[in-house]
Amino acid sequence: MPSLLLLPGDGIGPEIMAATKRVIEYFNAKGAGFELTEGLVGGAGYDADGTPLPPATLEKAEAADAMLFGAVGGPKWDNLAYDLRPEAGLLGLRKHFELFANLRPAISYPALADSSSLKREVVEGLDIIIVRELTGGVYFGEPKTIEDIGNGQKRAIDTQIYDTYEIERIARAAFDLARARRRKVTSMEKRNVMKSGLLWREVVEATHKQGYEDVELQHMLADAGAMQLVRDPKQFDVVVTDNLFGDMLSDIAAQLTGSLGMLPSASLGAVDEKTGRRRALYEPVHGSAPDIAGQGIANPIAMIASFGMALKYSFGMLDEANALDDAIAGALADGLRTADIAAGAPSIDTEGMTDAIIAQL
Amino acid sequence: MPSLLLLPGDGIGPEIMAATKRVIEYFNAKGAGFELTEGLVGGAGYDADGTPLPPATLEKAEAADAMLFGAVGGPKWDNLAYDLRPEAGLLGLRKHFELFANLRPAISYPALADSSSLKREVVEGLDIIIVRELTGGVYFGEPKTIEDIGNGQKRAIDTQIYDTYEIERIARAAFDLARARRRKVTSMEKRNVMKSGLLWREVVEATHKQGYEDVELQHMLADAGAMQLVRDPKQFDVVVTDNLFGDMLSDIAAQLTGSLGMLPSASLGAVDEKTGRRRALYEPVHGSAPDIAGQGIANPIAMIASFGMALKYSFGMLDEANALDDAIAGALADGLRTADIAAGAPSIDTEGMTDAIIAQL
Ligand SMILES: CC(C)[C@H](C(=O)O)[C@@H](O)C(=O)O
Ligand SMILES: CC(C)[C@H](C(=O)O)[C@@H](O)C(=O)O
Repeated sequence: MPSLLLLPGDGIGPEIMAATKRVIEYFNAKGAGFELTEGLVGGAGYDADGTPLPPATLEKAEAADAMLFGAVGGPKWDNLAYDLRPEAGLLGLRKHFELFANLRPAISYPALADSSSLKREVVEGLDIIIVRELTGGVYFGEPKTIEDIGNGQKRAIDTQIYDTYEIERIARAAFDLARARRRKVTSMEKRNVMKSGLLWREVVEATHKQGYEDVELQHMLADAGAMQLVRDPKQFDVVVTDNLFGDMLSDIAAQLTGSLGMLPSASLGAVDEKTGRRRALYEPVHGSAPDIAGQGIANPIAMIASFGMALKYSFGMLDEANALDDAIAGALADGLRTADIAAGAPSIDTEGMTDAIIAQL
Repeated sequence: MPSLLLLPGDGIGPEIMAATKRVIEYFNAKGAGFELTEGLVGGAGYDADGTPLPPATLEKAEAADAMLFGAVGGPKWDNLAYDLRPEAGLLGLRKHFELFANLRPAISYPALADSSSLKREVVEGLDIIIVRELTGGVYFGEPKTIEDIGNGQKRAIDTQIYDTYEIERIARAAFDLARARRRKVTSMEKRNVMKSGLLWREVVEATHKQGYEDVELQHMLADAGAMQLVRDPKQFDVVVTDNLFGDMLSDIAAQLTGSLGMLPSASLGAVDEKTGRRRALYEPVHGSAPDIAGQGIANPIAMIASFGMALKYSFGMLDEANALDDAIAGALADGLRTADIAAGAPSIDTEGMTDAIIAQL
């Protein structure tokens, strides 16, 4: 039986997870047979167990085929020590399961192209994907410290480290993905100021020569890449980049579409040689939105679409994944909007949107 | 006598510098008395002297009140060793003179608001400034290495380091600047994943309390900040951020305006206690554009406007600076366009645009 660990987290996390659970149960009623367990993470984990990643959650994650992750964080936990912050729960999961390949599609929903700050013709039909390295770079490198250095001065140090194998495996993920798309990969780094950028480019280039020459490869400096993303995003297909650049570039790409509340992501690990399973976590690109939490008005689409990515990448259920994508597009085409995408027009709540999507299935 | 060192550099650098020299000579004819010297930097320095920052250039820079810098780099020098690359000349100047405060205005010229990829109403009237820390962070921290670690693997390391005083002085620069503007500073970092982000926020906050409370201070995570910059750039006034985030955020901000070829920048150091002068380098935000170099069609406005920033920040010649800004706006309002901003309509060349600006003065 396929199994899923649900990790609602904080803020609107529990609300959008409840909505997604209804969608999963719909598929179960049709015989999909998903086994669901739930776990605590983020601020919810800290409040219950004093840590954003309780051992019980890790155990459940070990046992499940994939994780659905809501969102973490909020003002309540803003002053916690660095390792106790809600985000540390998410970073811990990424690192523990070596979920190195973060896929962040930026798709412009036709019904929403006008809600972007970009001109309609610049974003209409946009369908690109950012492949972000997720377990290396400045996020995890040591030393990572703040020390007193005397005279009232402190010194903060963060370390960006990349080894050849880390770059090679994310490059392969990008090339493989491009093959099922428009066969174009753009690699972004700052080789003009970072040694990790130099190695990044060298390894991506070498990996390309190892059997990926049917895919077009282009290199861009990350600052120029950010510019080009804003100037003409449709020039891209797959963008591959490091953890920190990927954090910013994928947020920019999401914003371009005007569909932030709609965008899912997948974080994939290597195939486990013993179980044959690929470790995976699926989560919305948006955050925990504490300002609207508890009101039942959050847009559940990004979370539901993240389950759609799980159907595709963890369970090979392509028909179901497509049906779900169509159902979401159908509800939007019918004019249904949660408040975040209603641009002031009448809107429906989380439950209403979920009903509409299920009705479309 | 006020003195300026001209560093044309590579690509279109010499062309736009020649144009700017004509503007300076116009001011000299009116009695401004600028003494001009020239120096080699970047690929031009490497070709002549085997180094992107020849000692003779540094000597001239020591003697001058300010530097005007064109642009460096091009395919010709792409395979040089790390420290010999054209960019190393620019980085060397920034570091040698501790030009820690990089001011990058992003202004939407009314005549060009339609050339942005963003909707007119989102960028019309945009006037924000990115204050980027320029001599610290991952650009200069050690270790910065690539080593063989066996098994065919290499490891690349870059180090981001920030000390209290570095953050404090750039925060002060931002607050001081905001006072002459709309009194709002937004500080961007990633304190949720970087220790330098944590210290950044702490020091900016503490500096704010030391007599800057008349300026509104807001903090944003850099990824959310990049999003907000694309979603609604007019919400900002002054954005202060570190070297690497500033590199990307200022390029995005420049792109928003649709006026990339028009944007100048200033890189300012501390006031030298002996000479009372503030070290300064002024350069366009755009690069060396090797693809159009040698054709005489480059847009000289960003370089000329960089001289305008020198008038303002190095020489206190505010009337002249304003007159120059007005002359540029006037030439644009008359419909004159270089090819980069002509959107396919008839265009004039570098010299034609320079004539038009001088005629407006
Ligand atoms: C919450 C935070 C730690 C995280 C990151 O920086 O990776 C988030 O911004 C993301 O992009 O998933
Ligand atoms: C040329 C390069 C080293 C430089 C930088 O990264 O700082 C450039 O992108 C800039 O923004 O001035």
